Amino acid sequence: MLITSLNNDRVKELVKLKDKKYRDNNNLFFVEGYDIALEAYKNNIIKELYVLEGTDVNMDIPVTYVSYDVMKKISDMESISEYYAVCYKRDENNIGNRIIVLDNIQDPGNLGTIIRSSVAFNFDTVVLSKNTVDLYNPKVIRSTKGMLFNQNVLIRDIELFLSELDGYTVYGTDVSNGNNIKEEDIPSKIVLVIGNEGRGISDNIKKLCDKFIYISMNSECESLNASVAASILMYEVNNK
Amino acid sequence: MLITSLNNDRVKELVKLKDKKYRDNNNLFFVEGYDIALEAYKNNIIKELYVLEGTDVNMDIPVTYVSYDVMKKISDMESISEYYAVCYKRDENNIGNRIIVLDNIQDPGNLGTIIRSSVAFNFDTVVLSKNTVDLYNPKVIRSTKGMLFNQNVLIRDIELFLSELDGYTVYGTDVSNGNNIKEEDIPSKIVLVIGNEGRGISDNIKKLCDKFIYISMNSECESLNASVAASILMYEVNNK
Repeated sequence: MLITSLNNDRVKELVKLKDKKYRDNNNLFFVEGYDIALEAYKNNIIKELYVLEGTDVNMDIPVTYVSYDVMKKISDMESISEYYAVCYKRDENNIGNRIIVLDNIQDPGNLGTIIRSSVAFNFDTVVLSKNTVDLYNPKVIRSTKGMLFNQNVLIRDIELFLSELDGYTVYGTDVSNGNNIKEEDIPSKIVLVIGNEGRGISDNIKKLCDKFIYISMNSECESLNASVAASILMYEVNNK
Repeated sequence: MLITSLNNDRVKELVKLKDKKYRDNNNLFFVEGYDIALEAYKNNIIKELYVLEGTDVNMDIPVTYVSYDVMKKISDMESISEYYAVCYKRDENNIGNRIIVLDNIQDPGNLGTIIRSSVAFNFDTVVLSKNTVDLYNPKVIRSTKGMLFNQNVLIRDIELFLSELDGYTVYGTDVSNGNNIKEEDIPSKIVLVIGNEGRGISDNIKKLCDKFIYISMNSECESLNASVAASILMYEVNNK
């Protein structure tokens, strides 16, 4: 099947996927590009696959071909790619032993990068506060480089989530207070809390942290980028 | 002095600073926001300071006030800030002992973040290949969070730069080849080479590397974000 008309009803539906409310109401999102579509395919979450006409497809699922103009219309990117897949949101797993909690991260690139690093450094779950940037924002998905499908990501009221945990040590991050992560003995069940890019961890969440850790650095530099700080901490935990 | 007309000649000149060629020809760039303007002020590189009318200024230099519309016109940001400073590009210093070389980094956020981390982890110099994204791109400057003024950043032909070095160990980064950075003895004079986001280090540069190092991670994840990888490596070197 080939769609070439911008007025096609399915095209109109696909365009709506750019809107968070529509994604939430339908429990769907979309990914763009071959690499990430392949990851989605391997994870068996593709609902519909749209491919630029003239492209050879090596995935064993029904394909709808679309014209360049249709792809341009449904795409969120400046230069379109050949693959566009509508995906089912993933079910939730058990939280496991190593959890990273993101309190109000606002930059889509930071969120995607942290999810990517969380897979690299063997964290079991990423928990997002409700005011964190939307997980299914196309820029977030691009920054995860397909790793979204390999991670258990939950959206929660963080205060409630932390207060209901049992047996975990909750680490807050702070530029200078607490212990140097290098010298900290890390228990097997931990929660790492990363705060907002500008303001850090909110006060009500700080109260729920058991300990604070920091990354040693030159005092000329006030702080690290949030995704860099989160990644270094996860790297250290993974190497303990 | 207050400028309110969008047709003012200085406003027309300032708008040209958004263009790389104009910045290069005049050896100038601009920064936006109080925090970064303050860093530029402390570093004594501000040529002209423009401030939104009605704002109190605590810097001891001549100020030109501008209307909201003028600030909107000269700004590169979606929501304008109160401070806009035209700055002189910084002179070059000696390269020091710890150098990070960026081979064709394309994402402005990655470049800015690496410069920020390079100050945090006591690197002396950042060297950019000529095809790296423009250092004075406003998005790069924003991502450095003012740390651009605390770092010696050079733009060079990387092959020539590396081949002329003497007494430095040049480390290439590779996802899986070479030694784990955790187990590597790092000499005092080193160069760390970081490759392009998608393609890694180019082949001609690889040939000039003495050794390769990698960051240990879960094999499900093919690679880390370039600024995360660079930051973890600099963090490790700084902690040796």
